[in-house]
Amino acid sequence: MMNSMALPNKNLHTLVAFVQVVSLLLGVVSLALLVTIGVSVGMGDSAEVVRGFLQTLLLTAGLSVGGFFLGRKIGGRRKLEPNARESFVSVGLGWIAVSAIAACSFCWTLHVPMADAFFETSSGLTTTGATILGKPEYYEAARGAAPLAGRDGNFTNECAAGEATMELVEPSKDAETCQDRRPLSYGVLFWRATLNWLGGVGIVFFVLLLLPLLNLGQSKMLYNAEVPGLKTTADQTTPHLATSAFWVLLAYGGLTLAAIILYRVFGMTTFDAVCHAFSTISTGGFSPRADGLAHYNHLPALQWFVILFMFLSACNFSLHIQRVTSLKVVYWKDEEFRIFSSVAIVATLFVTFMLWWARCPRSELFLNGPVGNALASGEEYLRGAAFQVVTVLSTTGFCNGNWESWGISSVLLLFAILMVPCGCGGSTAGGMKWSRIVVLFKQLSLEIRRCLSPRTVQDVRLNNERLDSGVIGKTLAFVALYIIITMVVAFLLSVFEPMASDVSTAFGAALTSLSNVGPGFGAVNPAGNFADFNAFSKLLLALTMIIGRLELFTIIVLFLPSTWKK
Amino acid sequence: MMNSMALPNKNLHTLVAFVQVVSLLLGVVSLALLVTIGVSVGMGDSAEVVRGFLQTLLLTAGLSVGGFFLGRKIGGRRKLEPNARESFVSVGLGWIAVSAIAACSFCWTLHVPMADAFFETSSGLTTTGATILGKPEYYEAARGAAPLAGRDGNFTNECAAGEATMELVEPSKDAETCQDRRPLSYGVLFWRATLNWLGGVGIVFFVLLLLPLLNLGQSKMLYNAEVPGLKTTADQTTPHLATSAFWVLLAYGGLTLAAIILYRVFGMTTFDAVCHAFSTISTGGFSPRADGLAHYNHLPALQWFVILFMFLSACNFSLHIQRVTSLKVVYWKDEEFRIFSSVAIVATLFVTFMLWWARCPRSELFLNGPVGNALASGEEYLRGAAFQVVTVLSTTGFCNGNWESWGISSVLLLFAILMVPCGCGGSTAGGMKWSRIVVLFKQLSLEIRRCLSPRTVQDVRLNNERLDSGVIGKTLAFVALYIIITMVVAFLLSVFEPMASDVSTAFGAALTSLSNVGPGFGAVNPAGNFADFNAFSKLLLALTMIIGRLELFTIIVLFLPSTWKK
Repeated sequence: MMNSMALPNKNLHTLVAFVQVVSLLLGVVSLALLVTIGVSVGMGDSAEVVRGFLQTLLLTAGLSVGGFFLGRKIGGRRKLEPNARESFVSVGLGWIAVSAIAACSFCWTLHVPMADAFFETSSGLTTTGATILGKPEYYEAARGAAPLAGRDGNFTNECAAGEATMELVEPSKDAETCQDRRPLSYGVLFWRATLNWLGGVGIVFFVLLLLPLLNLGQSKMLYNAEVPGLKTTADQTTPHLATSAFWVLLAYGGLTLAAIILYRVFGMTTFDAVCHAFSTISTGGFSPRADGLAHYNHLPALQWFVILFMFLSACNFSLHIQRVTSLKVVYWKDEEFRIFSSVAIVATLFVTFMLWWARCPRSELFLNGPVGNALASGEEYLRGAAFQVVTVLSTTGFCNGNWESWGISSVLLLFAILMVPCGCGGSTAGGMKWSRIVVLFKQLSLEIRRCLSPRTVQDVRLNNERLDSGVIGKTLAFVALYIIITMVVAFLLSVFEPMASDVSTAFGAALTSLSNVGPGFGAVNPAGNFADFNAFSKLLLALTMIIGRLELFTIIVLFLPSTWKK
Repeated sequence: MMNSMALPNKNLHTLVAFVQVVSLLLGVVSLALLVTIGVSVGMGDSAEVVRGFLQTLLLTAGLSVGGFFLGRKIGGRRKLEPNARESFVSVGLGWIAVSAIAACSFCWTLHVPMADAFFETSSGLTTTGATILGKPEYYEAARGAAPLAGRDGNFTNECAAGEATMELVEPSKDAETCQDRRPLSYGVLFWRATLNWLGGVGIVFFVLLLLPLLNLGQSKMLYNAEVPGLKTTADQTTPHLATSAFWVLLAYGGLTLAAIILYRVFGMTTFDAVCHAFSTISTGGFSPRADGLAHYNHLPALQWFVILFMFLSACNFSLHIQRVTSLKVVYWKDEEFRIFSSVAIVATLFVTFMLWWARCPRSELFLNGPVGNALASGEEYLRGAAFQVVTVLSTTGFCNGNWESWGISSVLLLFAILMVPCGCGGSTAGGMKWSRIVVLFKQLSLEIRRCLSPRTVQDVRLNNERLDSGVIGKTLAFVALYIIITMVVAFLLSVFEPMASDVSTAFGAALTSLSNVGPGFGAVNPAGNFADFNAFSKLLLALTMIIGRLELFTIIVLFLPSTWKK
């Protein structure tokens, strides 16, 4: 409502909203940094790493407090009620600004260039999980800072203690020795998992918890800034935002806690269990292990739990909340859940069959698998298939195997196709969301029927509720925009990125970034990483992740000239 | 209008419409076969080939006459005015039936299996130009039937006279001798070009000439069966269908004649000029030469004329007609033409630059180019780029080079992207058509602006005419359906076709078929062919071509259960 404003012009309003959003987000980041510093000190990281985190904390806390007072000063004591334009700008630019500021943590602890740090932070906060860490020089830089002998008695796996290593090193299929896995410091590993967790809670919460704090009267409209064209979670659970936010937090926290406990019980170290739980529930996918979840290929029960939690995190959180609050089994009543879970099951069975049909040896099925041509067992085929299908659908991006080494083109194509819709709306998963696919197919079916009976009435329903034509138009536009952005990014990569000299790398990198999955195809397959990409590509892909995470329109609107006119 | 019907039920109506359509189409095919037999006899083909064509003529003429009387008998003397359902069924099934019947020509002249013959005929009639001829055994079968010494004095090219050879044999870059190029009979080569030409005229005409003959009151609706969601050519030229049809025929015939003359003057043999003109104006792409247009790489002026005619054939024919009838330059006033030609120019310059930048040697730039690492000249880079860009945009599929041997991923990706929109509506080109892309982008821009001002009025214009929301909905549905069909076909190929063991072959074959281009990527790149695909894949791809040619909905409607309910 413009009448409550005391500010002279539109752009100043926008600035105030932007400063307030950034200030609040940086406050949350500062809290997370405090915890990270605690972990870093507690686990015995070198003074250099701890100093890097302290520097970052000073920066974020300082900017947060400064922003708070600046916002007060130029905005006055009056509470702001921003309009759509201000909300879009502050949400879009705010997310980018916070990623850039938080990126300093990687610059100051790992001494990586800013483009790398921004990529890693964006990848974390957007819960993508793609990483640029993997180049030997980064390990060299961090080696001195890391404890070569662990302090945690739980580190009892087959490698030496304290081998908290980086995800995704160069693939070397021959038996890897522990000496080859260079350690990073615990603090950095925990910080990456925390970025995932914050990004996940952020995306479910952003407008349910944060924006009401700013006392935004039009928070429902703002929520649409995050999920245009889809119903708000608030609508689905309860109309009271604060209550709804409490339940979402409870569900998110509860799932995280359950994952930590079960991961620990079924064989992970405590540190790994916490980090992996953080990046599972957020569907982020950063792992403290160089070989990711392949490190635990010898623990089938644990991997099945990882699959379960990835699956649950890709479901609409309002379903979990309804399950708890009403004590009824509501899942199957939800149309999107029915499609999502059916696709997950059918795709898993298909991939299992293809793996069995192709007689895929165990050494190809899993990363770091045993050498030789021994066939895998039925359970292993099923687990390998289910893990990869769910990791793509949930956009987690964990890997226990490399789908490209399977050499089955139909499976690769299936993964590329599944990388588009991904998870459910109102979850931490990225992608187009199945509800949009359902709407798309229903609208298509309507248009086909209209060929024969042109006067067929527009009646597309989701969960038995009639969607108005505005929502359908927005959904179709979203689908088209999704494909256009993927193509544009892939094309730019193929022109400017020497690493993307094959079409599948360019296309895979673009799609996996936009859908916030993590691994792609070609040079960025589950055994590769983004380390060798140039700075332009890293910035482009980081922006692509943010575009995807904020449901396209939030960022695309920023490119509209009319957004910036006075 | 149902009141003029004397028939007992809906399905009988449909059958009558179907029989009448097939009967009329087969009449046209019979005429074309008569001409082909003339050419075949005149050029001295073996008796076996001529006998094959005569057999086919007997079949088509017999079925045509039989169908005419059958339609009369069950339909009565009353003229039929079919409704939407009957029109869709008769157009969709009619096209498939005619392709299947005409396919007998290849079975009886070349002794190929039915799946191959159906693929080749569909490829011809849909103006795709993909071929299964290329396997040595086909040449063996046809060799006896072909004149080893030509009778046409014009055959003065660098190879022996009478070397009318098949398009797309296995690529062999080393200097090919004339002995390696196995000849097919002239009749078969002319017949393939004729199928292209018929398909091209058919698609522009179908509903403007044929359906009025059937006296269909709702021919505008029927035209929409061919181009749903787009304005009819009739609207753009003149409301009188017969006049409009006359002008379309004149434009099509005039362009063909101009192409024949210019091709002949600038260095082609008469036979080649006729065949190539037929497949240029129809944007079909069959060539009587084994190496296609690469055979004329030493004649730059000729190739520039081929580029020009490919470009003109991909423009809306109503523009050519307006140019002639009103003697005004109307092209640039048409929004679709502006976009189409701008894209063609920008893409050509981009590809030229990339070829120059990559220092592509002449031996890689052109098929059958000279061996060695000598660089090409500026004109050659520009010609190579323009030829391939226009061959893709116009969906002709002629090739003078192999884009995959260039090894530039951005160019491959660009071609894959250009393979989606292709040419203009109302042309012989396939693909999604640029007018739909224009509508899509305008609607997208509207939806993005609506994020900020939700009450923005729906006002998407094409050539300054406001489109109603039904047309926009249909266009967006078309775009989505296009992508879904491509993905489904690519996926089926990757599962069931051993040749499509890489994703790019599967994807390329699906897209090139749906867009009626011809060459794709991987095993079906410009130097490859579809000969080694299995029967299932050939039938699937033939169906895909027909789906694309009939603008998706016409065939997709046939899969709707309600279409077949009594």
